[in-house]
Amino acid sequence: MSYFDVASAAPLHPVARQALQASLDEGWADPARLYREGRRARLLLDAAREAAAEAVGCRADELVFTSSGTRAVHDGIAGALAGRRRVGRHLVVSAVEHSAVLHSAASHEGDGGSVTEVGVAREGAVSVSAYAGALRDDTALACLQSANHEVGTVQPVAEVAQACRDAGVPLLVDAAQSLAWGPVAGDWSLLAGSAHKWGGPAGVGILVVRKGVRFAPQGPADERESGRAAGFENIPGIVAAAASLRAVRAEAAAEAVRLRELTDRIRARVPELVTDVEVVGDPVRRLPHLVTFSCLYVDGESVLHGLDRAGFSVSSGSSCTSSTLTPSHVLRAMGVVSEGNVRVSLPMGTPESEVERFLEVLPEVVGGVREKLGAPVAAAAGTAEAVTVDALGMSCPLPVIELARAIGGVRVGGTVTVLADDEVAAVDIPAWCWTQKQEYVGERAADRGVAYVVRRLR
Amino acid sequence: MSYFDVASAAPLHPVARQALQASLDEGWADPARLYREGRRARLLLDAAREAAAEAVGCRADELVFTSSGTRAVHDGIAGALAGRRRVGRHLVVSAVEHSAVLHSAASHEGDGGSVTEVGVAREGAVSVSAYAGALRDDTALACLQSANHEVGTVQPVAEVAQACRDAGVPLLVDAAQSLAWGPVAGDWSLLAGSAHKWGGPAGVGILVVRKGVRFAPQGPADERESGRAAGFENIPGIVAAAASLRAVRAEAAAEAVRLRELTDRIRARVPELVTDVEVVGDPVRRLPHLVTFSCLYVDGESVLHGLDRAGFSVSSGSSCTSSTLTPSHVLRAMGVVSEGNVRVSLPMGTPESEVERFLEVLPEVVGGVREKLGAPVAAAAGTAEAVTVDALGMSCPLPVIELARAIGGVRVGGTVTVLADDEVAAVDIPAWCWTQKQEYVGERAADRGVAYVVRRLR
Repeated sequence: MSYFDVASAAPLHPVARQALQASLDEGWADPARLYREGRRARLLLDAAREAAAEAVGCRADELVFTSSGTRAVHDGIAGALAGRRRVGRHLVVSAVEHSAVLHSAASHEGDGGSVTEVGVAREGAVSVSAYAGALRDDTALACLQSANHEVGTVQPVAEVAQACRDAGVPLLVDAAQSLAWGPVAGDWSLLAGSAHKWGGPAGVGILVVRKGVRFAPQGPADERESGRAAGFENIPGIVAAAASLRAVRAEAAAEAVRLRELTDRIRARVPELVTDVEVVGDPVRRLPHLVTFSCLYVDGESVLHGLDRAGFSVSSGSSCTSSTLTPSHVLRAMGVVSEGNVRVSLPMGTPESEVERFLEVLPEVVGGVREKLGAPVAAAAGTAEAVTVDALGMSCPLPVIELARAIGGVRVGGTVTVLADDEVAAVDIPAWCWTQKQEYVGERAADRGVAYVVRRLR
Repeated sequence: MSYFDVASAAPLHPVARQALQASLDEGWADPARLYREGRRARLLLDAAREAAAEAVGCRADELVFTSSGTRAVHDGIAGALAGRRRVGRHLVVSAVEHSAVLHSAASHEGDGGSVTEVGVAREGAVSVSAYAGALRDDTALACLQSANHEVGTVQPVAEVAQACRDAGVPLLVDAAQSLAWGPVAGDWSLLAGSAHKWGGPAGVGILVVRKGVRFAPQGPADERESGRAAGFENIPGIVAAAASLRAVRAEAAAEAVRLRELTDRIRARVPELVTDVEVVGDPVRRLPHLVTFSCLYVDGESVLHGLDRAGFSVSSGSSCTSSTLTPSHVLRAMGVVSEGNVRVSLPMGTPESEVERFLEVLPEVVGGVREKLGAPVAAAAGTAEAVTVDALGMSCPLPVIELARAIGGVRVGGTVTVLADDEVAAVDIPAWCWTQKQEYVGERAADRGVAYVVRRLR
């Protein structure tokens, strides 16, 4: 089995396992108690805080341990917004943040606050000027991920942090995807991370609030973790989290070079091995271990099952692999193809041979799904002026397959109109046009569903 | 070392350790993913939920795992209050709930809700009729612990649950202290528990919401745990929690008998071995493993340090052992002595010999502290009609020591007035009178501090 989904969760690092087991005997007692067992637990907790703070690049008294990265994000955003409530209730986020950030933003809006989502370019990054332009006099907080969790694009955090400083707005960085690789550069104000993303155990997150940042913890009071993370501390987990962060950092520089070569190989070879593929995300400013591509004319779920049977565990931002049946908001915001989407995120230590085997297996898996779905091979030289295709009731990737088949029947300059009621079509038909170098004319409401109009250019 | 503070945190049960280690390899992946590692994690999570639900006495789909007992309480109360917001915003709690419940209540009040605290008798239990009388037409939720965490008194949960049913109000039971000993009887609606109290790992709580109970999770949305507990699941911890709950339940019946005998011994022997002691809590309706007593004329911190040096880890509800320098709200609500308070809570398996050694050591430790503080030995036959003692600027236990010294100087029927500005005196002077069978006349504001008036009766 090759596990290529470290962006969801990393297997426990051996150092984390050792630290966890060692601290089960010493770290179970209440660190607030003054007796021997409590003092030992407190020593472990203090040492873990020092180690984690050093790795993050902050003071120990700026860092608290939460019960997950999600909690760090939720509680960090809520506390920072409340701390600056007098300034205003405006929140700025990028459109490609993790759902933990976007759900916090939705909750803030539901509570009467206002939110600006800063869009991204096709490679997935915000522009610094667009981000700076979204900051207002009443902006209480801005949020930006260090790197995107679905496509690996690194955000211009240091530059955005400077723009936020200039505007007097604190910046919260969701660093969940990048902390294994190094500290976050720039003059940010708050930072959130998640141990199970770097090889630490589940159940541990970190929240950093720089000295001087106004912060008012929300929810019922609790004395633990400076009042910023309620509940009895999970000290063995915390010790394992801190120890494994140091351990992965020691490996990071060498592994970054090695894994970047392997993901570069995937970026280059997949379009050679599989037709009609869009590799997404920034080719250069990206995480070393993560690569995402979308294969036209297949559904992500079938590809994932095929790869799973072949021994590869990957994830997908396709609608059919989501419980809400909507495509990834990241791919949507980037305007890239979401159907047949595959995210490969390599754990540190992944052997080259596994990546080579993945490249061997992938064409067969995608080809098999395409054959079953009757995907088009190449566009014929058609003669019709305008063709309408009824894809009502069909779901991803079938409307795009219908479009690709029909385009062969019209002359260059002619149009295909696709009637579809699957909302994914709104993402994937324009994205298909972009990848296929056809013109996306536009969409309009139809009697049933939406009519998408495409002009054949070649 | 003898660790006698299992009510704070239990050492990890051997079964929890085994289950944790075994599931580190199988339980680290995202249980929402469809590949092999995800499916294995999901199987572990589902099995743990079944096991925990069986032990609690609920359906598996009524139970979610939270990141701590505190979170289960906070989120359970917030969700239940929001779910019944149309009914009203009134919350009923007992005066001796855990701080997690009382902090939730304070947060609810801060947010415009109303709260009724139901008082307790001197033994620490609410009366069913008083509790029922606090329920109103606009009561959204009622909370009652299964047993008290500081004195061990078992609450009449089944009867209160019935009164709540009759009034159409859901009852949330904080079962943190009792789940090791068995399921909570009665027709309750919600229940919270904490794994590290029963020998499971830190970082795992449980929240049960019975089918049909209106519940609206608060805070940002999150898909995990039916939307009721945000953040990536800590599956190894959850597996260990469920396994250890089953394991301790298998030992509970026999250990309950054995530990009850040992705590009965402490209840009976401590007042024989140490003068001026009040054993608090209900002598019969109580947890088997927990006993609390208060020693007059000593401060809790010195007693704890003395016991720690002698190899015993216990805790205290005295003001001097609290970060807020206020005595335990539980002891205050019961009207019992808080100074020199000692809570002994025995882990399952505690050998009889350790309890015997504790009984040997305790008189020396208390005697040593009393000697240092100059505590009174016995009241002389005084002649004065009225004496005033200036204890301004003195902190617990000194004002009570001054009182006890002065009472020897007045005749039977005469009075001692103590001037004190330590707020603990308001709890401990009346409680001293009760234990010493003297009359507490009352208090009044003085030029500085408060004047407490006591009449000598014997």
